[in-house]
Amino acid sequence: MSAPNSNFNQNLCVILVRTRNPLNIGAVARAMANFGSSRLRLVSPYDLAFREARSAVGASELLANAEICQSVAEAVADCTLVVGTTAATNRSVSLPLISLPEAAPQIAGVSRTGQVALLFGSEKRGLANQDLSYCHWLMRVPTTQQSPSMNLAQSVVVVLYELARTGNQVPKTGESDAIPTADPAAKMQSLLRVAELMHETLECSGYYSEAAAATAEEQLRRLLLRMNLTQPDSEIVLGMFRQILWKLRANSPQ
Amino acid sequence: MSAPNSNFNQNLCVILVRTRNPLNIGAVARAMANFGSSRLRLVSPYDLAFREARSAVGASELLANAEICQSVAEAVADCTLVVGTTAATNRSVSLPLISLPEAAPQIAGVSRTGQVALLFGSEKRGLANQDLSYCHWLMRVPTTQQSPSMNLAQSVVVVLYELARTGNQVPKTGESDAIPTADPAAKMQSLLRVAELMHETLECSGYYSEAAAATAEEQLRRLLLRMNLTQPDSEIVLGMFRQILWKLRANSPQ
Repeated sequence: MSAPNSNFNQNLCVILVRTRNPLNIGAVARAMANFGSSRLRLVSPYDLAFREARSAVGASELLANAEICQSVAEAVADCTLVVGTTAATNRSVSLPLISLPEAAPQIAGVSRTGQVALLFGSEKRGLANQDLSYCHWLMRVPTTQQSPSMNLAQSVVVVLYELARTGNQVPKTGESDAIPTADPAAKMQSLLRVAELMHETLECSGYYSEAAAATAEEQLRRLLLRMNLTQPDSEIVLGMFRQILWKLRANSPQ
Repeated sequence: MSAPNSNFNQNLCVILVRTRNPLNIGAVARAMANFGSSRLRLVSPYDLAFREARSAVGASELLANAEICQSVAEAVADCTLVVGTTAATNRSVSLPLISLPEAAPQIAGVSRTGQVALLFGSEKRGLANQDLSYCHWLMRVPTTQQSPSMNLAQSVVVVLYELARTGNQVPKTGESDAIPTADPAAKMQSLLRVAELMHETLECSGYYSEAAAATAEEQLRRLLLRMNLTQPDSEIVLGMFRQILWKLRANSPQ
């Protein structure tokens, strides 16, 4: 996967409802920038929280352009799909609850033609029933049952990552992102030269017992093959053993 | 996708190198709990940061059990795969750089039999070249080019989410798509012993020029990591160099 398609997440609208902590607002803005979303709306944020976030060092243009809304209704007005987020697994509200990885393709699909609202509740209480009444369905980041409650900004970043990930799997033109392997594998002739020289070095150092000597070269070749040396690495190793062997011989009593 | 398999992320070891901000340490611990990882190691954290994080209200058992390490070498010693994280796209170090969604299946595969270290650098500078010399390869969360730098704890949570997501899709019993290798990969402590002994042997043989000596050990570690030695092979190589070094010394004029 290459960098997110910069067009993809633009039809997402992140909506924070009654957020209390300025650090969370700042962290959400940074996460949005990381994954190419720019539309941030704040419903009834705690005044102080928002002013602090906006004036923080390094606060982004994105935060400066955040829209303040008086209600969820106002915040979702221009969206075609509204998705609420929740950590709870047993809720009183009977909305469909979909796990993030399954929800992502649906969101990606809608966002190609219309705007999708992603609703995140306050740190303490999440979304209220009143808020949920604006949602088409609910989405949950699949966490462990022992520890289901995520930090607000962390749940935002995971959702945006997953959506960018899914958006990028929609085929574009030509694929590019193979695992880079800069160097070619070593040619067999290089490997065999390394094996020979290692063998000689080991022999000279007294590594082999009489019994082992017979199969030693074979085992050495197998060892080298398992290492999957690249061509440049095989030359480095060759140089090492040349020097070691030279030294062993130079030192050895005549 | 259901809740993460609680066994899956247990073979992951999150390693924070020189973290400065106690809030980040706390947020990482919470993210780990959310996704079922429990092994947290801190390499040379700023003392104050760690004490503050540990004493914070709601600090978890996970944080209380975090291990403090003096070096990256110590922190990765019992791991079989070491993955560094980076935001940079143009780096001086020539390690393979793999995007998170493609890296995840590889990490999931290894973590079935051995422990995987995930290395995260400091907020300001990321991982140093010295740290990178302990890494098999690098991983990057695919962000926009305009805003590639993620908050530390946010990058941790995205990585853990993706790994839990992948782990749940990996077939548990029966076939896996891994290349069949009968023997387990070498633990880092074995590789580091090989690197040390090779270094000593090469030094003793006069392999290094004055100029090269400074970065020699780092380059040697990288070379060994590229070889993907198995545990038995690492012991064979260790035995070879023990003998060679012994012989070099025995021969050398007093």
